[in-house]
Amino acid sequence: MSWVDAPAFDRDEPFGPQTLPYGVVDAGVAVRVGDRAVPLRPLAGYFGDRLADLVAADTLDPLLAAGRPVWSELRARVVELVAATAAPRGAELVPLTGAVLPFSVADYVDFYSSRHHAENVGKIFRPDSSALPPNWTHLPIGYHGRAGTVVVSGTDVVRPHGQRRGHPNPEFGPSRRLDIEAEVGFVCGGPVASRLSTSRAAEHVFGVVLLNDWSARDIQAWEYQPLGPFLGKSFATSISAWITPLEAFAVARVTPPPLPNPLHDYLVEDQSWGLDLSIEVEWNGTVVSRPPFREQSWTFTQQLAHLSVNGATVRPGDLIASGTVSGAERDERGSFLELSWGGEQPVALSDGSERTFLEDGDTVRITATAPGEEGSLVGLAEVVGTIEPADGK
Amino acid sequence: MSWVDAPAFDRDEPFGPQTLPYGVVDAGVAVRVGDRAVPLRPLAGYFGDRLADLVAADTLDPLLAAGRPVWSELRARVVELVAATAAPRGAELVPLTGAVLPFSVADYVDFYSSRHHAENVGKIFRPDSSALPPNWTHLPIGYHGRAGTVVVSGTDVVRPHGQRRGHPNPEFGPSRRLDIEAEVGFVCGGPVASRLSTSRAAEHVFGVVLLNDWSARDIQAWEYQPLGPFLGKSFATSISAWITPLEAFAVARVTPPPLPNPLHDYLVEDQSWGLDLSIEVEWNGTVVSRPPFREQSWTFTQQLAHLSVNGATVRPGDLIASGTVSGAERDERGSFLELSWGGEQPVALSDGSERTFLEDGDTVRITATAPGEEGSLVGLAEVVGTIEPADGK
Repeated sequence: MSWVDAPAFDRDEPFGPQTLPYGVVDAGVAVRVGDRAVPLRPLAGYFGDRLADLVAADTLDPLLAAGRPVWSELRARVVELVAATAAPRGAELVPLTGAVLPFSVADYVDFYSSRHHAENVGKIFRPDSSALPPNWTHLPIGYHGRAGTVVVSGTDVVRPHGQRRGHPNPEFGPSRRLDIEAEVGFVCGGPVASRLSTSRAAEHVFGVVLLNDWSARDIQAWEYQPLGPFLGKSFATSISAWITPLEAFAVARVTPPPLPNPLHDYLVEDQSWGLDLSIEVEWNGTVVSRPPFREQSWTFTQQLAHLSVNGATVRPGDLIASGTVSGAERDERGSFLELSWGGEQPVALSDGSERTFLEDGDTVRITATAPGEEGSLVGLAEVVGTIEPADGK
Repeated sequence: MSWVDAPAFDRDEPFGPQTLPYGVVDAGVAVRVGDRAVPLRPLAGYFGDRLADLVAADTLDPLLAAGRPVWSELRARVVELVAATAAPRGAELVPLTGAVLPFSVADYVDFYSSRHHAENVGKIFRPDSSALPPNWTHLPIGYHGRAGTVVVSGTDVVRPHGQRRGHPNPEFGPSRRLDIEAEVGFVCGGPVASRLSTSRAAEHVFGVVLLNDWSARDIQAWEYQPLGPFLGKSFATSISAWITPLEAFAVARVTPPPLPNPLHDYLVEDQSWGLDLSIEVEWNGTVVSRPPFREQSWTFTQQLAHLSVNGATVRPGDLIASGTVSGAERDERGSFLELSWGGEQPVALSDGSERTFLEDGDTVRITATAPGEEGSLVGLAEVVGTIEPADGK
């Protein structure tokens, strides 16, 4: 019997000892167990000299920089810690409230790796062209997003102003087509490196978060050609407060659906890092979608191999997002643009109301689990946000 | 007669007392005078308590965060320092060699604000479409670049690998169309802010650098639709080692060429921040282009107003690039893509050789000056780089 309360050790508890994500609360670096957290700074002595400075830090930045061998050592010690029958001196359980953005985001790259999503967006945005761009099956398409506006789950999102198409001149005002993108984010760490092979790439990933890439579709549609999305995305990107270590996903690995053409060597995987994550999207409490991450065509290791093949470095704090996760079915789509098919097919919520895009006051909550060892569930911490009305000015 | 050597005070010396850019050398934060630098850490006492920590820092990061009133105070003291007849205790002049990237790049945004450049690229890349995208005259088009691969002038650039178009499948290998983009970069600082007005935006700009946005055109052409440039740009972006304070450009302000349509209020400028910078691009020692920055259609204050109008924050270390600077004439084009018109019209160098795109061993040097007070010239520090062959692997 562990000193940690029993419910946290149920198999159905996605934040049991099989998961143990890291985050930062008022008291500094902490590990989550169930619906509470254990601050690690008071336990620095327990972890020994090599780990003490990392767990006593104000953020996860030093831990991210430390690299895989240290991450593994710390995880083994944390597993022992929460399994101990008596609480170590200084150990306590605190609420999850007050968790802050746990690391400094270096570069934020957003991919576009769900075939269903890319095809849906292609049909909606570019009805006169082929749904899938010709490069899509040959490389994981991606672009850089704004690192400075990545915010922690729970942060309110103010409806953005911007230009949208108009005749003869564009209009300006609060976005009328405010949307989400349900995604999975990979937090990088370890030594600065470039030209990563697919087999080495996972060594540079500390852990996994959920990510909501809030999107203003009207702003995006007017601005994005020829240089890609900019203000339609840059106002806010929300991520989980707790990062689930990559090691927790050992039994969740799957092989993604095959691509129809041969790949260049640098994108070929020996052992695939597809992940069997089951995602849920709640809109004001109604589950409106269950996007299946296992259907993504490109894995995070392929994404890292691609983004660094030109010599670009990967450094601690880089955040790699999967792109919107959508399955083949309507109720598996990871954006409201797709769920409402460009605003034409309203989505019914359980309170009887209908939605196409986000209204002020709406709350979106994204959760996910993966299969863990011995039939357990590995959790990804929720990413939740509520829409505030546009600024008055 | 100043203790600083006399040549630095010639009117024709672009790094005389009218300029005084900041950088970081082995000895820490320094100010450039002529072709030497004065490290400021040994002079911390001279600057007084409020400034001492800023000039004694290892990087310009604390100074960038300090904001305009502090920047003005420091500049006034630095002007006094270099004008003093006797060297203050601890003052010395050191070589410029060894200057490092002087600040931590937060977000890097690259705009597309030269009409000539946008039209040229449109004609070369999209010959079947209108040269200028329909949104171009209504907003400053921009996108996020990779902050982690911004490097200091003098850093060699390794020819990147990547995919390029091929039939039936894309090819992979070292880029065959390696190019430059001659740009001007604006380094942000001061308090974190959003929804900046054009009149407030300049308060958030510490100073100005030259920037070479190295570009692999074959990689870019295959990857960039629909989400914009990614690996074609992310391998390296070079900036000057020395940041010329914005205050040095007071008499260089000009009004940019008018746009053909009304602008939304947030983009209207009371007093324009166009800048009369004369740029020179040298390819292996031959001046091949003289791009006129005064012809840019969108100013940095409009760019900052645009990028923050959706609520996105501007924070210290943000780097805002103008986009390639091109004039109307052939010898005013700021990229080799344009100079060689897509590789069809070779450029003659003074050694009798011809070029379309960059060859291994080629060196590109970009310099610029602006009109200063009393007929002086205000310099932007060079940005120079040499192409190394692609990695063997």
